[in-house]
Amino acid sequence: MSPIYSALVHFPVRTRDGADMTSAITNLDVHDIARSSTTFGLKGFYVITPIAAQRALLDRILEHWDEGPGRARTPERSRALSICRGADSVEEVINAITAFHHQAPRVLATAARSTQVHCRADYDTERRAIAETSVPRLILFGTAHGLAERVIERADALLPPIAGAGDYNHLSVRAAAAITFDRLLGAQRPEN
Amino acid sequence: MSPIYSALVHFPVRTRDGADMTSAITNLDVHDIARSSTTFGLKGFYVITPIAAQRALLDRILEHWDEGPGRARTPERSRALSICRGADSVEEVINAITAFHHQAPRVLATAARSTQVHCRADYDTERRAIAETSVPRLILFGTAHGLAERVIERADALLPPIAGAGDYNHLSVRAAAAITFDRLLGAQRPEN
Repeated sequence: MSPIYSALVHFPVRTRDGADMTSAITNLDVHDIARSSTTFGLKGFYVITPIAAQRALLDRILEHWDEGPGRARTPERSRALSICRGADSVEEVINAITAFHHQAPRVLATAARSTQVHCRADYDTERRAIAETSVPRLILFGTAHGLAERVIERADALLPPIAGAGDYNHLSVRAAAAITFDRLLGAQRPEN
Repeated sequence: MSPIYSALVHFPVRTRDGADMTSAITNLDVHDIARSSTTFGLKGFYVITPIAAQRALLDRILEHWDEGPGRARTPERSRALSICRGADSVEEVINAITAFHHQAPRVLATAARSTQVHCRADYDTERRAIAETSVPRLILFGTAHGLAERVIERADALLPPIAGAGDYNHLSVRAAAAITFDRLLGAQRPEN
């Protein structure tokens, strides 16, 4: 079984028009994706921003649930947030995982739009490989209007957009992350 | 293809200790579940609360995105929220769907915990039935610590809890709804 990591990227991401931007950390993204990551057995969840004041905000959120009043009131929330870490860049996260596992992670980008890429992953193949190998994996999720092109290009592969029923495809990053984890790691056929 | 409806229930739901409570509407729940519902082609998304002041809050949110300033700035959000309606009770929603389709919906409850129930649905069977029949379906999601027992008992069936990797199972209702829609309606094997 591969150790799996997720990362929520706040830079570099895209504006509606495709330009580079840095988005702000959203408290609820941190909570929701930490809870989903923990439920599906991920080893870690990174929140990536290069802005020092945003890192300080993240640290305050995590401290509230680690040593602060949140822990006593909602211990299961503390457990989820305990796998969350801040990082300055995607590279820093890759380096940390590589150092820990003595092996570089396979980096999987995600996008809501179809993009021309060098390598497209598919969920079933990736799911089997996760179950059968020990290669770490890092799944990148973009805030705002998605990961910058260069992040997708540098990844090892791009997971296909989550196909809905028609032309509307505007899932929140919280919803997209949950579905991605379920497709790659969930028990698809629960006992009846 | 069955017409599918979702409903987010704020009463009757459970406290941590299993007592009855009424929870407050959360703006982000409304947005996220409306976006997920629209992406997966649902016909409607109901927000259920018996409290008049909470219904007024919901109406203000929907108006902001229907006729207010939200529409011009983020038209795709308006499209998602256009399928959202308020209702006083689960019964009111069932009656509205029955009146519209001249057929009562099959009501599917959801729960994060395993519960003894009269009838447990499974995702694959339900998915096939949705694709092959025209019986409307209503999927109920509970806020707070989940749907009250009597709501689950009155439903036609209970969908199994979304199984993660271990004993931790604390998905947000936003994440659980997204995964449920994907399991029942998503293209599970996207083209590569």
